[in-house]
Amino acid sequence: MEILNDEYYMRLALELAAKAAGQTGINPVVGCVVVKEGRIVGVGTHLKRGTGHAEVHALQMAGDEAEGATVYVTLEPCSHFGKTPPCCERIIAAKAARVVVASGDPNPQVSGRGIARLREEGIDVTIGVLEQQSRLMNEKFNKYITTKLPFVTLKTASTLDGKIASRSGDSRWVTGAIAREQVHTLRHQHDAIMVGIGTVLADDPLLNTRASVPAVDPVRIIVDTSLRLPLEARVVTDRTIRTIVLASCSASSDKIAALTAAGVEVVVCGSGEKVDLAEGMKKLGELEIGSILLEGGGRLNGAMLEARLIDKIVLYYAAKIVGGAEAPGTFTFPGVDKMADAIALERVQIEMAGEDISVTGYPAYKE
Amino acid sequence: MEILNDEYYMRLALELAAKAAGQTGINPVVGCVVVKEGRIVGVGTHLKRGTGHAEVHALQMAGDEAEGATVYVTLEPCSHFGKTPPCCERIIAAKAARVVVASGDPNPQVSGRGIARLREEGIDVTIGVLEQQSRLMNEKFNKYITTKLPFVTLKTASTLDGKIASRSGDSRWVTGAIAREQVHTLRHQHDAIMVGIGTVLADDPLLNTRASVPAVDPVRIIVDTSLRLPLEARVVTDRTIRTIVLASCSASSDKIAALTAAGVEVVVCGSGEKVDLAEGMKKLGELEIGSILLEGGGRLNGAMLEARLIDKIVLYYAAKIVGGAEAPGTFTFPGVDKMADAIALERVQIEMAGEDISVTGYPAYKE
Repeated sequence: MEILNDEYYMRLALELAAKAAGQTGINPVVGCVVVKEGRIVGVGTHLKRGTGHAEVHALQMAGDEAEGATVYVTLEPCSHFGKTPPCCERIIAAKAARVVVASGDPNPQVSGRGIARLREEGIDVTIGVLEQQSRLMNEKFNKYITTKLPFVTLKTASTLDGKIASRSGDSRWVTGAIAREQVHTLRHQHDAIMVGIGTVLADDPLLNTRASVPAVDPVRIIVDTSLRLPLEARVVTDRTIRTIVLASCSASSDKIAALTAAGVEVVVCGSGEKVDLAEGMKKLGELEIGSILLEGGGRLNGAMLEARLIDKIVLYYAAKIVGGAEAPGTFTFPGVDKMADAIALERVQIEMAGEDISVTGYPAYKE
Repeated sequence: MEILNDEYYMRLALELAAKAAGQTGINPVVGCVVVKEGRIVGVGTHLKRGTGHAEVHALQMAGDEAEGATVYVTLEPCSHFGKTPPCCERIIAAKAARVVVASGDPNPQVSGRGIARLREEGIDVTIGVLEQQSRLMNEKFNKYITTKLPFVTLKTASTLDGKIASRSGDSRWVTGAIAREQVHTLRHQHDAIMVGIGTVLADDPLLNTRASVPAVDPVRIIVDTSLRLPLEARVVTDRTIRTIVLASCSASSDKIAALTAAGVEVVVCGSGEKVDLAEGMKKLGELEIGSILLEGGGRLNGAMLEARLIDKIVLYYAAKIVGGAEAPGTFTFPGVDKMADAIALERVQIEMAGEDISVTGYPAYKE
């Protein structure tokens, strides 16, 4: 059973933050709990970029009770004027006695300054309570804030022999209902979804988030070297969701104009025949796409992996074997000669997802 | 914590049985615990085919204390004269008051008769205590005793993209030390190991069991259609372990004679160009091979799966991606057109094996 201590309250703050994943854009998720004399007097979570931070909401709820209270917050309170005033000043004004922080803010504009400011005012600050959980929860934010590049999660669904379809191309369905619900949850939790033009031409998908409750739709990113995207494709005609196409400079300017007129944003990446994916990630970062769920076919997955642009991998395996040498696989790329040079995953976790298996890990690219 | 009840003692009996897996040949593993007035007075396990059953050992240890005692036994006591006298009579002679049985014996020669015989003598019999665990433990025996066919466990080791080697054929190493130790434990626990001639020609393996403690070596089975097996191969020259070769009728009689002279048993399976694997399993059953660990390459694995001869599958995945369309996969067979017709696994279990992942399941062949 749970023990009443700093972690007891921090777990609630973490849960408050975690549930807001997907709705804060390039901002981190942050939760806050204010405790006074053994009772919770305020709770808050950051809901949306440009609106109040978690501490502000929680202190608002606490009102006068905040004086002398302990503030549990999952991320170091900000000390700078961003889209909202600094939370440190709000905590100081509320006369909190103690602040407990899970992890420091990697944002170079904050990074330690928030804690220093609180201590300057005589507030007792404890840092590092459930630090790893907090860092993991903001892995997307942590990458974006330090590199301005989106955090890319690759998701695949294959049979145990690594096939994403049968030899005849049949892929309905590889995995079951629970794995598919998890994938839509991943869509909700990423700023954007990315697929290759092959997927759009084959299935004409909407690429939205479908859950048993309303959900956030990710921005759609289509990798389409020579702009084969039809103007009638649902990702074009459905204007409720933003669509960005990554093309090469071989794309015709007429087609660029036609797609632009249809509301699609066309981004030309690099000067070669193919889309320069690294350049693409840089430009998407500039467009404030902080995280991408890559749901590509074997070729796009392989190219992104070879280019070392994938940060996290979520592989679903249906517990079946379909066979067929010509059946398409999860990763299509030249590969390496030595087994020792294979791209290893770190921090591997396995889990049953209904009748399917999920394997999660982080590629460890060698120097 | 554990609660003192029938399961408390049955768990010990199951553990006694389980640890003897691999040393009883086509006999089941069986454990027995005798309890008198709250104290264990005897324990036993079946050690080797043709020697005393678990009950005999346990009652021997109990001596006069067996009178009025409770006998916990994982499998229904035998009622027939096999290689040893019936255990039922031994229990009756010892004047036990109660017998607790995990599961009935599927052996048509026993199947319920043992229990009936004990009740006839006024002994209180409880059946079904930890029944599933007992059945699972003897899954190999259960198949063999009812079909006279060996229970086949397929083991593979691949990357997450289903490759057993890189595009250049490099396979050192796919999985790590702990997965390899588990594989040698599987060898210890099966009557035989089966590979294709390709594996023998490529690696000249000894196919023995290598563990940190002494272990039982499985009989070696090589599938070798046209008898390409060299007389200098280690599986031939090492005569400490029995080697059986499954050949087709296209094999030359001179080569059969030469291998036979070298101590190898050659079994011709079917009348076609290829080895008739179903016929091979039947003949191996006649040779009292009750269980086989299949460690084939993609082709043999695929052929055995298509022929529906695999009972259980243990897949090891190294947490890495090696790529390469031409890199060999775990299963090489034509496959099916519809994803819905893929061969599904039932009762799937996943586990970390050191840094690797193991997936275990049972193929559910459709009618």
